[in-house]
Amino acid sequence: MNIRIYNARILTMEENVPVFAGEIQVTGNKIAYVGPTADEKDAMGENTKVEEKIWDREIDAKGNLIMPGFKNAHTHSAMTFLRSYADDLPLLDWLNKQVFPMEAKLTPEDIYHLSKLAIMEYLTSGMTANFDMYLTPETVAQASLDCGYRTVLCGAFNNFSQSIEELEDWYQRYNEKDSLVHFELGFHAEYTNSRENLEKLAELSHKYHAPLYTHSSESRSEVEECIGRYGMTPTALLDKLGIFDYGGGCYHCVHMTDEDLEILKEKNIYVVTNPGSNVKLASGIARLEDMLERGIHVAIGTDGPASNNCLDMFREMFLATGLAKIKADDASALDADKVLRMATVEGAHAMRLFDADVLAAGKLADLVMIDLHQPNMQPINNLTKNIVYSGSKQNVKMTMVNGKVLYEDGQFHIGVRPEDVYAKANEIIGRMKCN
Amino acid sequence: MNIRIYNARILTMEENVPVFAGEIQVTGNKIAYVGPTADEKDAMGENTKVEEKIWDREIDAKGNLIMPGFKNAHTHSAMTFLRSYADDLPLLDWLNKQVFPMEAKLTPEDIYHLSKLAIMEYLTSGMTANFDMYLTPETVAQASLDCGYRTVLCGAFNNFSQSIEELEDWYQRYNEKDSLVHFELGFHAEYTNSRENLEKLAELSHKYHAPLYTHSSESRSEVEECIGRYGMTPTALLDKLGIFDYGGGCYHCVHMTDEDLEILKEKNIYVVTNPGSNVKLASGIARLEDMLERGIHVAIGTDGPASNNCLDMFREMFLATGLAKIKADDASALDADKVLRMATVEGAHAMRLFDADVLAAGKLADLVMIDLHQPNMQPINNLTKNIVYSGSKQNVKMTMVNGKVLYEDGQFHIGVRPEDVYAKANEIIGRMKCN
Repeated sequence: MNIRIYNARILTMEENVPVFAGEIQVTGNKIAYVGPTADEKDAMGENTKVEEKIWDREIDAKGNLIMPGFKNAHTHSAMTFLRSYADDLPLLDWLNKQVFPMEAKLTPEDIYHLSKLAIMEYLTSGMTANFDMYLTPETVAQASLDCGYRTVLCGAFNNFSQSIEELEDWYQRYNEKDSLVHFELGFHAEYTNSRENLEKLAELSHKYHAPLYTHSSESRSEVEECIGRYGMTPTALLDKLGIFDYGGGCYHCVHMTDEDLEILKEKNIYVVTNPGSNVKLASGIARLEDMLERGIHVAIGTDGPASNNCLDMFREMFLATGLAKIKADDASALDADKVLRMATVEGAHAMRLFDADVLAAGKLADLVMIDLHQPNMQPINNLTKNIVYSGSKQNVKMTMVNGKVLYEDGQFHIGVRPEDVYAKANEIIGRMKCN
Repeated sequence: MNIRIYNARILTMEENVPVFAGEIQVTGNKIAYVGPTADEKDAMGENTKVEEKIWDREIDAKGNLIMPGFKNAHTHSAMTFLRSYADDLPLLDWLNKQVFPMEAKLTPEDIYHLSKLAIMEYLTSGMTANFDMYLTPETVAQASLDCGYRTVLCGAFNNFSQSIEELEDWYQRYNEKDSLVHFELGFHAEYTNSRENLEKLAELSHKYHAPLYTHSSESRSEVEECIGRYGMTPTALLDKLGIFDYGGGCYHCVHMTDEDLEILKEKNIYVVTNPGSNVKLASGIARLEDMLERGIHVAIGTDGPASNNCLDMFREMFLATGLAKIKADDASALDADKVLRMATVEGAHAMRLFDADVLAAGKLADLVMIDLHQPNMQPINNLTKNIVYSGSKQNVKMTMVNGKVLYEDGQFHIGVRPEDVYAKANEIIGRMKCN
């Protein structure tokens, strides 16, 4: 498909490029052109002859904003079945008493359907890719492929599920350059893995020079227990075991010492913050300002729908800045520009989607149209602030992944009827409640 | 208009009434019936003969949820012009350096148009009434009347604007039983009023046995300065001066001592919490759990769009519970049931809209239809949790105020074209930037 979107405001998210009026041209799954319209270029004397092109579709953006899609840099999509089921418990009780027993009843096919429900919600929030850690990467991958959605799978290795051999197999299998699905090595957490496991993970990372991703330092007790076991924080332990030698990322990072932050900076480890989940589970407030000051890269994730419970980058962005302001006791902390960068460019880089970070010719056509013809986007004093401080799912007019419009004006174009996905999700949790 | 909404899930918000399937009938501006459908009643042998009624409109709710509209119990609607203009500053700098100088340039007509922009946003978030403190109540009232929106005006008396005589005049004028607009006595804050003013306010309240509303204890410095001036907290001072003798409410209440809370409880003063504004201005986290434990009534407000910056009850509800959980270091703090009550029933009572609190025959037809056919509302494990933990503006399918559908499927029915309201708002802030 060749698609031209004209009459748009454009925010490329390239450094120091302000919002401008223009058009964007998509050929296949890539961006072919972003800039002023042909007429405008003519007027500037820059473009006397434009190549005539046959467009499959021309979209009048009516002054709305085109920007890179948000990147959900940490989630467990298929946990949709537990939305509003397991709530109001602290992290470890929630995990051990509610989540793990219910997850034990999931089939790989359940995970396929439940992942689709999450993908639909990502699309409504303008998220064009997710970094998904869950039990059966094969069926998570299939859900994304069937919907046309971009997913980076993350290993969830731990003492009870997945194995080093499986990780290696998935890493080799989901590695085609042009696929919508990739795999990165990862494990659930320090506290769910033996020391032997952790050493094997480091070995695997060293073998492929590959980064590793994991939950880390989400709750205070998790850190305390690690210190009890090993005499050091999770961050210090993972570093000592060689887990960080080829980069990667840590999810949550709520309870971090200065020394921990120095390690992440030195090893170029991404932090993926999950503010919605962190407040809902009362885990705490991450030190985002301290991280950014040290030059640590920070991305944003929703975490899974059982802990958050919604999958909404607008809510996460406001929480990230609001909590940082409260923590710093300073209303100027973590301004909107920084937050929007975390939700887009930094997210893409954390997920190693280096071709899906900004809008530019040659980049992947993963983008979103933000409806500015809504009361919460008016007046237009500052578009970045409008998006971060007052944006909402309601403003997502269109979400394009890999050059295809998957969501537009409230309609999904993902090869399945929404009502069928909802019915499946209710059927799955219904079956579990009976058994 | 007689409107019948059938095939609905219904949450009346009456105590101990769970969600049920049924229908709601609206006659004029009132609810005539809420309950099972006629067919269902027949089947239960409860209803053999149904009165034939001519409906102006019958709406198939398609299984969506009908519930009372949210009540925005504290806002400054017309501050829409400063959205994304004055940001990232602490409260007092923000107020003195950005807000007050710009507000000095506002005309009453500006306030009329800017209030309409806020009303539109309230409708998109399912809010059916606002408690509005601003400079020119007459034009705020006119905006609401012209849109068909319900507004409780609140006096904003202070050393620089409004007078006791005006308060008394408005209190008498906007007092008709069936009007969409009412007026309650109120003043900006302790720190913007002389002691003499505060004494006059107490006198006026005593004269009419009328409650008083004000900002109070929003920032730490505000409380410290009051202690410096009077040797006591704002709450203790206002109590001592007789301000609380006929009830009323305090907005924000972030920095409160135990003694302050005892006073509010004893005098039956509503707290209106504004979590979005409180985090964005780094004011702090209110002690909501401590308030509820003492039996203090708590409602929720968005505050104005210059500080928040959006007008969205879904965001406020999640922030209220999330911040309470963080403050208490307890994931079970302030659960979804309590928060939903604050956003609806308690809000109505705080605003003295005793006829707009729950869905029942004889109550005002101020209600909202929540779209459950959206991925963030599925599966349906618990509707209250779905709304509070994962709801969003995107789920507001219809908002009815006073028996009239003012917003439905993204379209406004308020007697003015949205684009004209947006153009006016941009024109007003544009003019100010040039002067």
